[in-house]
This record gives sequence, C-alpha cells and structure tokens, in this order.
Amino acid sequence: MDLEVVTVGTELLLGFTLDTNAADIARSLASIGVRVVRLTTVGDDARAIRGAVSDGLHRSGFVIVTGGLGPTRDDITKQAVADIYRAPLELDEDYLSVLEQRFARLGRGPMPESNRTQAQVPRGAIVLPNRRGTAPGLWLHGEPGSTVLLPGIPQEMRSLLEREVMPRLSRLASGASGEATVTLSRTLRTTGVSESGLADQIGHLDRTFDPVSLAYLPGLDGVDLRLSACQMTRTAAESALARAVDQLRPVLGQNLYGEGDVQLAAVVLERLRASAWQLATAESCTGGLIGAKLTAVPGSSDVYVGGVVCYSNESKARDLGVPEELLRDHGAVSEAVVRAMAEGVCRRFGTAVGIAVTGIAGPGGGSDQKPRGTVWIAVQRRSRVESIRRWFPGGREEVRQRSAQAALDLVRRLTD
Amino acid sequence: MDLEVVTVGTELLLGFTLDTNAADIARSLASIGVRVVRLTTVGDDARAIRGAVSDGLHRSGFVIVTGGLGPTRDDITKQAVADIYRAPLELDEDYLSVLEQRFARLGRGPMPESNRTQAQVPRGAIVLPNRRGTAPGLWLHGEPGSTVLLPGIPQEMRSLLEREVMPRLSRLASGASGEATVTLSRTLRTTGVSESGLADQIGHLDRTFDPVSLAYLPGLDGVDLRLSACQMTRTAAESALARAVDQLRPVLGQNLYGEGDVQLAAVVLERLRASAWQLATAESCTGGLIGAKLTAVPGSSDVYVGGVVCYSNESKARDLGVPEELLRDHGAVSEAVVRAMAEGVCRRFGTAVGIAVTGIAGPGGGSDQKPRGTVWIAVQRRSRVESIRRWFPGGREEVRQRSAQAALDLVRRLTD
Repeated sequence: MDLEVVTVGTELLLGFTLDTNAADIARSLASIGVRVVRLTTVGDDARAIRGAVSDGLHRSGFVIVTGGLGPTRDDITKQAVADIYRAPLELDEDYLSVLEQRFARLGRGPMPESNRTQAQVPRGAIVLPNRRGTAPGLWLHGEPGSTVLLPGIPQEMRSLLEREVMPRLSRLASGASGEATVTLSRTLRTTGVSESGLADQIGHLDRTFDPVSLAYLPGLDGVDLRLSACQMTRTAAESALARAVDQLRPVLGQNLYGEGDVQLAAVVLERLRASAWQLATAESCTGGLIGAKLTAVPGSSDVYVGGVVCYSNESKARDLGVPEELLRDHGAVSEAVVRAMAEGVCRRFGTAVGIAVTGIAGPGGGSDQKPRGTVWIAVQRRSRVESIRRWFPGGREEVRQRSAQAALDLVRRLTD
Repeated sequence: MDLEVVTVGTELLLGFTLDTNAADIARSLASIGVRVVRLTTVGDDARAIRGAVSDGLHRSGFVIVTGGLGPTRDDITKQAVADIYRAPLELDEDYLSVLEQRFARLGRGPMPESNRTQAQVPRGAIVLPNRRGTAPGLWLHGEPGSTVLLPGIPQEMRSLLEREVMPRLSRLASGASGEATVTLSRTLRTTGVSESGLADQIGHLDRTFDPVSLAYLPGLDGVDLRLSACQMTRTAAESALARAVDQLRPVLGQNLYGEGDVQLAAVVLERLRASAWQLATAESCTGGLIGAKLTAVPGSSDVYVGGVVCYSNESKARDLGVPEELLRDHGAVSEAVVRAMAEGVCRRFGTAVGIAVTGIAGPGGGSDQKPRGTVWIAVQRRSRVESIRRWFPGGREEVRQRSAQAALDLVRRLTD
C-alpha cells in the first residue's frame, strides 16, 4: 500500500525547524508494509494545504497530514481539509467534555476559550483521542480517498500514530495485497571505535549481506550500524537480517553494546544489577550528564544511588575527600585527582562501583599540556580503580557528551 | 520572488536520512528575499521526479532540485528534468576535460567510465562547476520556467548554492521588484505558560502586527514565539519586527525569559552573577539534568559550584541533612522534604542560592495522592525558601525535562 505525507508549517518552509515527523512516519509505516511515496511541505496557508492534500489524494488515495491543528489562529489545517470533503465543522460534545475534564483535573482554572475550537470536528470524521495533548487526530474518508490529520508536536504525533493509525493502516495494508512486502531494519550500536575503524574491521564483509544493505551512522553516542532489507516478505527480510547480524557480531566484539534503541546507561545498569552492585557518580566537567543518563532509565534507583556534581575544587575536597595537595600538585584535571574522586564517591555513598570524570570541556581552560578536550575518567569496581585519559574533538557540548558516554562504556567493559 | 524545492532520494522517503538540504536552502534564500513556498520529496523514480518538478514549474515558475545527480544507476534526476524541457543530453567536452584533469591530479588512475555520464548535460543548460565533487550543478531555462539541479551531498549542495545559485537568484529577485526584499525573523522565548494561555493573553493583538506573522512553537523548554517579516525591504522588516516585539513584551511580562537561542540556564547564571550569588543543586527525580543544563553554559563555574544527586533517601539524609522523620512522615516527594533539601544544599556548599527537586517521573511510583508527574520544587535565596508543586503531563523524560526547566525558572522569577 502506498500513501503520501503532507506536513504543514511556515516554520518548516523557513528552514528553522527540521521536519522529523515525516521521517518518523515513513520509518514506522515501512515496518507494516506501507510505503510513503511522496512528502510535501506547505506553509500555514489554506489554499496551499488544500492543493497539496487534494493532489496527493488524486495520486495515491491516502494522505497523512501533520501540523496546524493547535488552538491558535495560524492553525488552519482542519478547516482546509474539511473543505476538500465539503464537511462542515461541528462541535463534538463528547470530546469537549473530555477536554474540560482534563483541564479541571490539572487544576489550572477554566479551559481557555481557544481550546474549544479543538473540539470542532469535520462532520463524519473519526476522532482519534490524543493522550498527550488537546488536539485530537482525525480520520476522514470520502470520495477522493482517506485523509488522516495528526498534530505536529512530535510526541503527540508519535503517540497517535502508534495507538490509533498504525493498527488501522496495518489491517488496510494486509487486506489490499495477497502477501504484503515490508521493509525491515535492525540497528547495531557500537561505541569506543571510529567510523573508519569500524569500516576497516568490516571490510568487504558487507558484500555478502546482499540483499541486506549496511549504513554507518556516526553520532555522539558512537557509531550505529543500520542493516535494511527492503521490499521483501516479512519472513525473508527477517532471516536475511538475522544472517547479517550473525556475521557482524563476532567482528564487532566488545565495541557492540546493544541493538535497536537501547541506551548504554541501561546496559550498564543491567550489568550492575546482575552482580547486585550499586553505583555512584562524581562528575566535574560533565556536571550531572552521567546522572541524568542513568536516571533517564526507568527503575534505575535500585542500582544508582546518586552522586556529587563537584564543579569546584572545594567540593572535590569536602564532598569526595580528594586531598588538597593532589589538587594543588596535579591540578583538578589529572589522573591522581580522578582516581581519588572515584574512591571518594564509593566511600561516601557506600557503593561497590563509582564513576568519576574531570576534564576541560572548553572553550576556555585549556593549556599546551592539557588542551581543550582532555578528559580523565576513572571507575572504581570493588577496591580496584581503572583510569583512562581521552582527548575528544568538537565543542563544549560534544566533549561533555562523549565524556559521559566513554565513562559509562568503561564501566561496561570492566563488568563484561 | 517565490520558488519550490524538490528533493530526490528513496532513502529520504524511507525516513532514515533527514533532509537537511531543503531547510538549508530555505534559510539561505530567505535572507536574499527569495521565499520557498513548497518542498516536495520523491524517490529515485523518473515519473515521480518529472511530475513533481513539472507541477512546481506550473505553480511557481522556478524549482530547485537536489539529489540524484551522482554517477550510479539510481541517479536519474538529470534525464527526468531534461525530458520536461525536451532537451537531449549531450557530452560537454569542456566539463569532461575538467573531470579528467581532476582525476589525473588526484593520481587515482584513469577516471571510471561512470563519471563520464556526469559530463552529459541537457542541451542549452548552464553548467555550474562543483568544486567539491564531480556532479556539476545545472541551470535550465525554458518554456515552463527555470530549474536548477544541485547534487544531494550537503557540502556540495551548499558550496554550489553559495557560489553559483545565490548570486544569480539575488539579481533575479531584485530585478523582479526594484529593491530587494528579504524575510527576517525574531524569536521570543517564554516558559511557565501554555500555548493556549499565551494565545489568550495575546488575543487579537497579533492582528496589529501585520505584515509581521506570529507562530507559536511549543516545546519542553516552554513556548517560543516566532515573529517573521516576509518579503519586505530589510529596513522595513527590521522596524516592523521591532514594533511587534515592543508590543509583545509588556503582554508577556515575566513569562518572557529571552530572545533568539538563549537558554534559561544562561539567563539564571547571569542574574546570579550580577548579585554575586553562588548556586548549588539538590536533584532527586531530575538526577543531574539541572546541573547538566547549568554546566552546558561556558563560564558557569563562577556561579555554579556543584550539587548532590540524591537518588536515595539515605543520600537525602546523609548529604543534605534532611531529617529522617520528614522522609518517614511525609515521604520523599513532599513540600517538607524539598524545602529541607534546598536548605541542606546551601548549607553544604555555602551558597546563597539552592535549587531542590523531588518528584515522581514515572512510569512507576505514582499513587492516588501523588500521581505520576507530581513534582515539588524549592528554591532557597539567602534565608528564604519558596516551594511550589507541579503536575507535569507526558512520559518520564518529558516530566524530568519540564521539572528541570521549571526549577530554573523559579530561580529566575525570584531574582527578577
């Protein structure tokens, strides 16, 4: 089954906002055998919206539209699409009372008048409830074909797509063709190795993956490897991907930390949980990033008990017991200090494992001996401390993100 | 002057690659008074490319196409567009020798045969030399309008856009309208108020901004307001934007925290620096996010000295001196505990200002009395403590991000 996507927003045309919704929809639909054959972006302009949706319906019979469903005056998608179907907007009393109850529950006073317009729906449209916001999704069906309207806020769009749109589309797609073909992907996540380093290891192995294709996706977390099997039956795609993954695993070795959208912090927490070890953090240049990554994982509190953001020498000495003379003689960014930080945080929090990071994230603070991007990382595991030095490229935020990832990775490698 | 952009690439339709070229083109052209009115993405399919370019030419008379100009078999943009103009492809001997010389200079052996096809150009097209790659840009002009073809590799596209396309377009745009017109934008950042709350405050004021348009951009940081002055002379655009900003400021009041891409953490640090006050953080459910936001700002160390991630009751008691009976009687997520956390972290770090956050980010841990999304925030400023309770919607990460932003915002409001 083929369809088109229309995204609405003058912001998108000005180039200030990147359209992540269209890509998200395309990826999700590929997995159920629905192919996006055209994306169109138009501004908050009724004539342009009507034209784009109408053309798409005539070409492919099915259009998903995102954006322009909010309560403000520049949100005009609903009216423009209703005009195509000659469907007047009518107040949906049920949805209005859902909205009013939600506002009452949040205790933020009476619902603003502008939200009432969100309960206006084109006659005959199916209302798709939005659990994350106030604009409902809408599904219109009629002479030129079917149009689904979704809000433009990514988390609202995603929630409606998964709960309401994909189950219905999946039934339509399998009804349309005998055996459906799908596009499936698997992603292997690596860290601690560069893109070219990985390419050298993999060499020409990827030629044997045919018809599976391999893409290298470098980012601040490391390099992801995406394997894709396109337009095949589900069984054939799954087994081709499984073969390729089996060939890659031994080549990637310890650099591979997981698959899909798994986070390194979750892998580390799982390893420590298996040993019944608790973890504490002592962060200087990362300033709380490692704690934030660990606590982003639901249920992290049985392993991660907390830590100290020691963004001053006083805190390193007072809260972690780093001897003043180490700070004076070696400087805050040094092997001696990072090891004392790891030991100190384990002592204070009574944990088996401690992570410590101190470095020069820039833009200032660098020197010839310790240039910007110099980072010391230590991990204490029971009574043993391992420490490493790294030089990271890039700006302040890149150095900090790479430092946090490298620190978590050191724990992972030490608990393998 | 208006035009449309068509990007070509099946990988864009699969959603694995984000289209950054279209946004880049739109931003660059706005500054020379050229407006992108529609973006279309199609796959590597001759019929779809012809249809999209041809429709765009009929609507607006000018289309920029990126992608599908490489040497491989799936690169078919050139032929498809040449067909619209009924222009046969002919070998451009000059460009062929440029390519051959370049290969000779790189010493990589003879030029692959596939690169010869890149010297084939539609009859009558202007060849735009590509300094960064082998596919030239092409400028076709004829009956349905003008089409510019650019390669899809971002750095090649950008180099051709800047050197070859923008100077020519700039002359066309100013030739068309006497004085050149531009599109300029300003962004006002607000937090602590919902999109619909803002819309109610602003009411119909935005009608008086004409010709400046107003867009509401809600996100986890709050709601940004983007004002755009389109297709005006630079002087007129700047003064129209200044007038609109002056009208909005008093309406937004304390909800406005800055302009452009300023971060709330930077505003807070600046306020505290002006009073020579230092800051420490006590984070439970945010787990280090507030520290991470503060330390993302270069030079934050003169104000922010550090903090405690107290992800366990033991840490709240031991590191911040929260009395055990408060934790037992009120629970960790309570007004009594958050106030004791703020006092405790100021005491430990010897700072004038302290931020404390404790809450239930979910997905587990909620109860009827304290549902998921319940967050207590306290700020100590000198010896005074202010505390607020919030209920945030959304998933774990959304609750945490909103909590961190609300905590920083409370400091800002108390130091106004």
